[in-house]
Amino acid sequence: MTRVTRRYKFAASHRLNSSALSDQQNRELYGKCNNPYGHGHDYVLEVSVAGPLDADSGQGVSIPALDRLVNGQVLRDFDHKYFNADVPEFLQDLVPTSENILRVIEDRLSANWTKVFQGDWPRLESIRLQETKRNRFELRTH
Amino acid sequence: MTRVTRRYKFAASHRLNSSALSDQQNRELYGKCNNPYGHGHDYVLEVSVAGPLDADSGQGVSIPALDRLVNGQVLRDFDHKYFNADVPEFLQDLVPTSENILRVIEDRLSANWTKVFQGDWPRLESIRLQETKRNRFELRTH
Amino acid sequence: MTRVTRRYKFAASHRLNSSALSDQQNRELYGKCNNPYGHGHDYVLEVSVAGPLDADSGQGVSIPALDRLVNGQVLRDFDHKYFNADVPEFLQDLVPTSENILRVIEDRLSANWTKVFQGDWPRLESIRLQETKRNRFELRTH
Repeated sequence: MTRVTRRYKFAASHRLNSSALSDQQNRELYGKCNNPYGHGHDYVLEVSVAGPLDADSGQGVSIPALDRLVNGQVLRDFDHKYFNADVPEFLQDLVPTSENILRVIEDRLSANWTKVFQGDWPRLESIRLQETKRNRFELRTH
Repeated sequence: MTRVTRRYKFAASHRLNSSALSDQQNRELYGKCNNPYGHGHDYVLEVSVAGPLDADSGQGVSIPALDRLVNGQVLRDFDHKYFNADVPEFLQDLVPTSENILRVIEDRLSANWTKVFQGDWPRLESIRLQETKRNRFELRTH
Repeated sequence: MTRVTRRYKFAASHRLNSSALSDQQNRELYGKCNNPYGHGHDYVLEVSVAGPLDADSGQGVSIPALDRLVNGQVLRDFDHKYFNADVPEFLQDLVPTSENILRVIEDRLSANWTKVFQGDWPRLESIRLQETKRNRFELRTH
């Protein structure tokens, strides 16, 4: 079994502010990420998928199929957008931290997986989001 | 136990074309990677090896020994070569996809492991091959 | 559960020489890393920590708390220092290989963990040290 990791980029902005906390608590928790008008990042998204090798093709995962899924379900809605106002999942109470962005990405990929991949394989193994050169977040799904 | 990852580079070219498929099927499956005269990549190969620390030396793996193994069994035969014509494993039916290149690398390292490493440790943990900045493939062996 | 990886840098110098070995053995084992006056590296340290998401904050790990721990226990003592003469753990018999530096970092983080993190979570998952662009060492703690 081979694991394939595909790397995508998108630019987006967000503001970290939780409706469950007071203004003072939000400033203490999120620091400058709580500034009122949001700020942007050049996000790097890595999606890791694994599957057994097909003997004829020498491949375990169709990368064009994975690209269609990620482009259609994630990049098209996220790139050059303001999470807090443009992405439905974050319009209410969900704070667009990298951790929550990863959860939303996983939900979207899983819910639409069978549109591009049939059968038991390949399966989603891990999603990683690099917010800055100093911060990387990972959600392992297997 | 510490895991040591050593990074190597080689430039090589390949053409993806499976003898089990028709010309039309090959074009659909591999896209521009099926173009008749091949194309090149600056591959980045990472080999991860783990072993218990030796108390005297403070090391778990002899990096010069690992380099000898990888240079002699992989880089010398792959660097500045055309996989389809120059590397024996790919002369017949095996398509030089990154997945299959990883399998060949694993076979070569495993078959010659005891020439440079004696005893139970260190052991090969993982081999990763970066084909482009967007694609990375991993074969985990432990 | 989300894994957060935070990246730090420090510049330090070391000489690899084991008191358990003869001069000849040291030269053979460590090569140019045994040269008498030491040599420096721009180390890259990655610390991975995991914890369950807090529903209100959308975060699993307080990055400012992690930074306080790593800055206070590691970077302040290591940056722009000579391991063999400046860092207490290496003044006697411990050779400042990357493997041993990782062990010292783990000891320091673990011993002071509860000063910044209370409760069962987050926990330390992995520490990685990149000595050069070709060498990376990892100590997995979970």
